Amino acid sequence: MSQNVAFIGLGIMGLPMAKNLVAAGFNVTGYNRSQGAIDALAAAGGQGASSVADAVKDADVVITMVPDSPDVQGVVSGKDGVFANAKAGALWIDNSSIRPDVSVALAADARAAGLRPLDAPVSGGEAGAIGGVLSIMVGGEQADFDAAAPVLNAVGKTIVLVGPAGSGQTVKAANQLIVAANIQALSEAVVFLEAYGVDTDAAVKVLGGGLAGSAVLNQKAQKILDRDFAPGFRLALHNKDMGIVTSAAREAGVVLPLGALVAQLVTSTVASGDGALDHSGLFRGVQRLSGKVESTIDA
Amino acid sequence: MSQNVAFIGLGIMGLPMAKNLVAAGFNVTGYNRSQGAIDALAAAGGQGASSVADAVKDADVVITMVPDSPDVQGVVSGKDGVFANAKAGALWIDNSSIRPDVSVALAADARAAGLRPLDAPVSGGEAGAIGGVLSIMVGGEQADFDAAAPVLNAVGKTIVLVGPAGSGQTVKAANQLIVAANIQALSEAVVFLEAYGVDTDAAVKVLGGGLAGSAVLNQKAQKILDRDFAPGFRLALHNKDMGIVTSAAREAGVVLPLGALVAQLVTSTVASGDGALDHSGLFRGVQRLSGKVESTIDA
Amino acid sequence: MSQNVAFIGLGIMGLPMAKNLVAAGFNVTGYNRSQGAIDALAAAGGQGASSVADAVKDADVVITMVPDSPDVQGVVSGKDGVFANAKAGALWIDNSSIRPDVSVALAADARAAGLRPLDAPVSGGEAGAIGGVLSIMVGGEQADFDAAAPVLNAVGKTIVLVGPAGSGQTVKAANQLIVAANIQALSEAVVFLEAYGVDTDAAVKVLGGGLAGSAVLNQKAQKILDRDFAPGFRLALHNKDMGIVTSAAREAGVVLPLGALVAQLVTSTVASGDGALDHSGLFRGVQRLSGKVESTIDA
Amino acid sequence: MSQNVAFIGLGIMGLPMAKNLVAAGFNVTGYNRSQGAIDALAAAGGQGASSVADAVKDADVVITMVPDSPDVQGVVSGKDGVFANAKAGALWIDNSSIRPDVSVALAADARAAGLRPLDAPVSGGEAGAIGGVLSIMVGGEQADFDAAAPVLNAVGKTIVLVGPAGSGQTVKAANQLIVAANIQALSEAVVFLEAYGVDTDAAVKVLGGGLAGSAVLNQKAQKILDRDFAPGFRLALHNKDMGIVTSAAREAGVVLPLGALVAQLVTSTVASGDGALDHSGLFRGVQRLSGKVESTIDA
Repeated sequence: MSQNVAFIGLGIMGLPMAKNLVAAGFNVTGYNRSQGAIDALAAAGGQGASSVADAVKDADVVITMVPDSPDVQGVVSGKDGVFANAKAGALWIDNSSIRPDVSVALAADARAAGLRPLDAPVSGGEAGAIGGVLSIMVGGEQADFDAAAPVLNAVGKTIVLVGPAGSGQTVKAANQLIVAANIQALSEAVVFLEAYGVDTDAAVKVLGGGLAGSAVLNQKAQKILDRDFAPGFRLALHNKDMGIVTSAAREAGVVLPLGALVAQLVTSTVASGDGALDHSGLFRGVQRLSGKVESTIDA
Repeated sequence: MSQNVAFIGLGIMGLPMAKNLVAAGFNVTGYNRSQGAIDALAAAGGQGASSVADAVKDADVVITMVPDSPDVQGVVSGKDGVFANAKAGALWIDNSSIRPDVSVALAADARAAGLRPLDAPVSGGEAGAIGGVLSIMVGGEQADFDAAAPVLNAVGKTIVLVGPAGSGQTVKAANQLIVAANIQALSEAVVFLEAYGVDTDAAVKVLGGGLAGSAVLNQKAQKILDRDFAPGFRLALHNKDMGIVTSAAREAGVVLPLGALVAQLVTSTVASGDGALDHSGLFRGVQRLSGKVESTIDA
Repeated sequence: MSQNVAFIGLGIMGLPMAKNLVAAGFNVTGYNRSQGAIDALAAAGGQGASSVADAVKDADVVITMVPDSPDVQGVVSGKDGVFANAKAGALWIDNSSIRPDVSVALAADARAAGLRPLDAPVSGGEAGAIGGVLSIMVGGEQADFDAAAPVLNAVGKTIVLVGPAGSGQTVKAANQLIVAANIQALSEAVVFLEAYGVDTDAAVKVLGGGLAGSAVLNQKAQKILDRDFAPGFRLALHNKDMGIVTSAAREAGVVLPLGALVAQLVTSTVASGDGALDHSGLFRGVQRLSGKVESTIDA
Repeated sequence: MSQNVAFIGLGIMGLPMAKNLVAAGFNVTGYNRSQGAIDALAAAGGQGASSVADAVKDADVVITMVPDSPDVQGVVSGKDGVFANAKAGALWIDNSSIRPDVSVALAADARAAGLRPLDAPVSGGEAGAIGGVLSIMVGGEQADFDAAAPVLNAVGKTIVLVGPAGSGQTVKAANQLIVAANIQALSEAVVFLEAYGVDTDAAVKVLGGGLAGSAVLNQKAQKILDRDFAPGFRLALHNKDMGIVTSAAREAGVVLPLGALVAQLVTSTVASGDGALDHSGLFRGVQRLSGKVESTIDA
């Protein structure tokens, strides 16, 4: 008999993930603040719900996929929320990317409400969500992780339990630190090379063949050379994530000099009007620092 | 008829490169300040020379592979140097990693002396040198690049002309900026994850599967988790390279905030006694910043 | 008829401030978690209270002077706190240094409880508190500021209304940013000069005579040259303040590259065990970065 | 009998200094690349020379005051320079701000030529030069410093021997590091305060009264609040000085994280077109980082 899955948050990432669950044979009931996404899920074979409470009341697994810490809190707490309405023993999988400390606190609340919580933020973007090949970093109990495996396998490819509750968010924070730093470094390198009149297409080719090679270089270098900053993953969201990692580091007494600087540079690029661009738009911030301002780009 | 190649500088990188040239059928005459490396080349089928002048006098191609800008200047200039003793029309390929402005000046001197200069720094380390699979970023004239192809193909795999004289060094400088930044970012991420008690083996696996993946992560993350900092590429040399890229950026009026900070952090790790470690030893600098000093490691 | 003043928090700063109020003729009732400070105030002519509620019940002016945001929240909120027990129309002056956003929220709560709130953090240290010459940056209403003038004049010298509720905390945050940056810059300069073997006593003299002169240089340079880091203002508290200013900047979308870096360096020095030193102990962090570790100092 | 002083470099700083020497009774012969300044000195009671050689041939004291390291080298070296034409035993006082390593090398050359060298960069700006109240940081021998006292006292007020040859330049480099950092910190503080709508006039007043007070705050805060960036000391020159201090630090293996970052921010502001503004124009760079671009200012 197929499991009932409630899916809260049918956005750019959530909707294709929910569709993949339908395709994998799960009985998916979706809820979203706007009706359009609910209809889209229904058209794909899922059911729509009229509220969070309605969506989760019969669910074996509740999935939440919303933008930020307050959004998760809003969806799970209160008399209309997940914790008050899901049945005892249900799995709660939070695929959102939020603050680890909030995640730890919510996991405790969930357990007190009789649920089994997993924080399970994802990496891989819209393409990964559509293709069902997301990387998923999971925090929680081994038994709950095992129980969630069928659901997680339907939406992701690399799925790893990294520690107790909150650990998934911690690893996601580290992921975002590395990605932003790698984009910033690549951007500085390209501005440097352009200033010296080097053939940057050739340079990117040779850089990619050695120790400077990276997923960022493979996926973003050509976009940077072409000044194509259509998202992809928006800088404004990456700015939120840099706030999470720097704040979590301060909480733990960990010093991240490069992380802190990159966080400022991400904020600066957003403050300069590029928050809706792909995070490769950090390149535009680097250009501005060297007085090389190019016309505003409509993302 | 096989070409005569003079190879100046038979160190960790130079000796295996010279051997690969011998193996490819070139007639290789080597010179090094210490005799042992000359003997090793002779044992592999090359010839030894008693001086730079002796090595280059009959060469069709002169290769230099020495540590820093002053070393190249010392080898090519003066009455005993390459420029005064090589025959007209010979190719001079400088595989050293040096300052772009010095490289440009020496290329002009070389041309004035009747030689055909290429700056051709490499990436890929000792393993790449032994395997003959180096990435080579070349600055110079197209015709000279074409003439050098047989020699370069014997020591490298990804071989790209990136612009006029000095451009190879400029790209190498950018390469070193990216590599150091990627190591620093990875190191900050690992210290952060360890502080939160995350399963770092699992975390590295999932990080490597997404946009945070990189050659640095593939080759250095396990070394960092194992606290194995045997070189590889020494931090002290990377420190020299960070001086090159930040100084070249200043010369061009290019702003590299992340590059400048990473340069300071590399210098700091070297100043703390870790200059002989692999550049993944930057991790130890990050640990120190958070008060997590581990016992000194004998590299 | 003299005003009744309740003084909550009789620490290094609070006790001498309360004594100055006694000396100025106010009727001061003090409360502190430990009894010793209450006794000291009584010995100086004040009264002791057995609880916050007891201290504030007859007060015309309530002053709070505690370490951090949660401490203020703990003292003012709840059924035993200031808001529930002070009489309507009383002034509440918070001399603590806390988060501006918390200060704004508490001011609203205070006003709802019928009190007249002023946030009024101070600068000048223990010496300024004892001498009654503190600088006080005040946020709140003009009429309340005027009403508080007699009290503030008894403890401070430069007393300025800088804007609506929370503004005092905002200016204090900016103050701490400037102070930490100036100490860090001085420290880097001294390590640089020592490395070059310059006569640093002479250098400090000539630096102080020009545009590099500052209160930090006047008060801290000799301490640094003497390696005398007895507090003074503890680095651990300054670390808290750097968290406040960087977090408030992020909240407002303001980019503070130097502030963010200095915040990391302060955290690093604290993480290395120097949190109990005077904030001039930032110098030891700069030394460590250059591998110049000196023996631990007992503060 | 009055001493003969040759003064090379009659710019914004040099001309008023030379005039002060005339006023103090010295017999001053001036040389400058443009004739106008020579005429101005003559009008004030000095003599003009037709070349460096002509100016220095009878001088007891030779003073040089030119913009940068290559300018000093150009003036003192070669057959037409100071070293080849000044008489044995003459004092050579270099008031220019240049690289310490160049200064050390030139001092050795001067001594080999029979001269007595002092590096003596100044602080205090045009106003200090006109008023004869410059701070002067001197490197060299005690006996030469003593011999130069009458000359130095005619142009400065705080005059300190800080160490052997080059030490004056080292202290000047440290001075410029502190000044730039203090301006940057003040600028970040003001942008932060403006974002929060604080009364910045009041804030500057209270900040100046405490540990955040400084010569920079006294002299530059009002200019910043008024957006008045007329020089003063130009950012382009401060950018040169930041290159000197960061390069000298790298040479000595000293880590200056804040210095390196400020150097990048100075370069950035210059690259954005503000190099001709007063160095308080760093404020405009901070504004740009937060997306608060104001219209270009004609300096």
